[in-house]
Amino acid sequence: MALSEFELIRRYFDRPQAAVGRDDVVLGIGDDAAVVTVPGDRDLVLCMDTLVAGVHFPENTSPEAIGHKALAVNLSDLAAMGAEPAWFTLSVTLPQADADWLAAFARGMFRLADHYRVQLVGGDVTRGPLSVTVQAHGLVPRGEALQRKGAAVGDCIYVTGTLGDAGMALQQGLRAAPALRQRLDFPSPRVEAGLALRGLASAVIDISDGLLADLGHLLEATSLGAMLWIDSLPRSASLAAAAAANSGNPHYDIILTSGDDYELCFTVSPGQCAAVESRLTALPGGCSAVGVIEAAPGIRCQRQDGSSWVPAGSGYQHFRNGNG
Amino acid sequence: MALSEFELIRRYFDRPQAAVGRDDVVLGIGDDAAVVTVPGDRDLVLCMDTLVAGVHFPENTSPEAIGHKALAVNLSDLAAMGAEPAWFTLSVTLPQADADWLAAFARGMFRLADHYRVQLVGGDVTRGPLSVTVQAHGLVPRGEALQRKGAAVGDCIYVTGTLGDAGMALQQGLRAAPALRQRLDFPSPRVEAGLALRGLASAVIDISDGLLADLGHLLEATSLGAMLWIDSLPRSASLAAAAAANSGNPHYDIILTSGDDYELCFTVSPGQCAAVESRLTALPGGCSAVGVIEAAPGIRCQRQDGSSWVPAGSGYQHFRNGNG
Repeated sequence: MALSEFELIRRYFDRPQAAVGRDDVVLGIGDDAAVVTVPGDRDLVLCMDTLVAGVHFPENTSPEAIGHKALAVNLSDLAAMGAEPAWFTLSVTLPQADADWLAAFARGMFRLADHYRVQLVGGDVTRGPLSVTVQAHGLVPRGEALQRKGAAVGDCIYVTGTLGDAGMALQQGLRAAPALRQRLDFPSPRVEAGLALRGLASAVIDISDGLLADLGHLLEATSLGAMLWIDSLPRSASLAAAAAANSGNPHYDIILTSGDDYELCFTVSPGQCAAVESRLTALPGGCSAVGVIEAAPGIRCQRQDGSSWVPAGSGYQHFRNGNG
Repeated sequence: MALSEFELIRRYFDRPQAAVGRDDVVLGIGDDAAVVTVPGDRDLVLCMDTLVAGVHFPENTSPEAIGHKALAVNLSDLAAMGAEPAWFTLSVTLPQADADWLAAFARGMFRLADHYRVQLVGGDVTRGPLSVTVQAHGLVPRGEALQRKGAAVGDCIYVTGTLGDAGMALQQGLRAAPALRQRLDFPSPRVEAGLALRGLASAVIDISDGLLADLGHLLEATSLGAMLWIDSLPRSASLAAAAAANSGNPHYDIILTSGDDYELCFTVSPGQCAAVESRLTALPGGCSAVGVIEAAPGIRCQRQDGSSWVPAGSGYQHFRNGNG
């Protein structure tokens, strides 16, 4: 096949306006650029993430999952800012124009996009090694964007959902339980939780590089430290089952250091904890209190019996080997 | 070397706010996303382009040129919308963390960014085959974005600058004159011309795939055709010299079908032509009248003596071989 870039874009990505139908899109796909309107009482929130085959997803990942994940990781960044997703642009680089691949990729991407009423407004299809870049745009009431900085000593530390499923799926490869692989391939961005945290959380970050690494970034922003209650870290039933099958190893390391879960980690001042828990319990993923902000820099881990626990790794970094 | 993603971003891309110092940037590099403000009387213009090594630039291209070009091609898209550049995000995928490469890349990119007061607000550095994606954001008075559609029968067709230099540089490779290679490596986005065309041009597109291909897109938007005056197509002195050295071949094909010049092609109703020429003559690149919009679909080319001329190719398309 020899579809031109224009035909490819038209066939797979330029859907009728009605598919999402945002009335703030003045001009969508098909010109040199897209034109949108931002209400005067909103700030614009921007993020961009690239997924490279073999680096950010296993080579055997389905095109549906790649399409989903490329958008999901960006919606997760918007969630960490408390922003409502609005529009996105997409750049796909692929070795050849493969109609089946593109159809499946678009299916995975648009299923998630439609769920959150976020509209594809432009982009680029080019030839080259497989990689996908998404830029997502969200809106937040002026001055209310959640940030990494803002945590204070004594604030509770929370995470949404459960941790370690995606990391276990990566580690186990084809042996992984379907529920674990689903978490790796089709992560759920915590958009609703992010919106609910506006005005309540003191600091928020999304967990893309592992809890220790990303909580570390949150702490760096204010030069504080943290105590994590290692036995309170939320694990899925599937991860617990994998742990039980593996001589009862609790997989603390995977829970603390594996990326790709795309949960939120956030801090809340003690007076707001009840309000946060009540709001988030009703939302997808819920939340768990996992520790407390302390003045001494660094992250310490404590078992239920008060004994301390030292992690082996501190999260994934793209130009290191994982144990930075 | 083993710089982490965070150290890389900090060292090369997170410059002091003062370097550009836009006061509409609420939160720049360093959080999950950037936060910016859009004035209530402006529309937001978005575009994204990816450059892949060996596809969009020769493998021997200098990192300065890659940094310049990745931003320039996006500023060219903004120019075609009449938008004023404001912010951009950047995703760089590179095989290894190479400090010299990144320093030179950043130098090339920021020289252009600073010239147009466009601020880098976020992005991503990942490991993988070399490619660069930039998303640029511009502002335009509400409802005034220039578009591809809008040309009418009898409108004059103009192009800015000169055509074919970049194509000739690509064709001649290492033998190309420095001035030609400069056009390929460091294209000048016609930002000033785009701003000057607001309210005057009936339709605008930037020339990234060759005049025939891009004028073709402009015509498709209104199902019209065009007559091009082949002898009026603007050529640089360097291209003319290359032509003279090559048995006097006028290189019409290169002028018409080679991409990478990043000039603007636009149409103007006859009553506005004098105003456009007067405005654009004072700006970098100037402009030349090269034809007229006609009712019959298709693009025809005419010599000065009234004889017709038929081009051999119709522009570069990423999934074809160039003669689609």
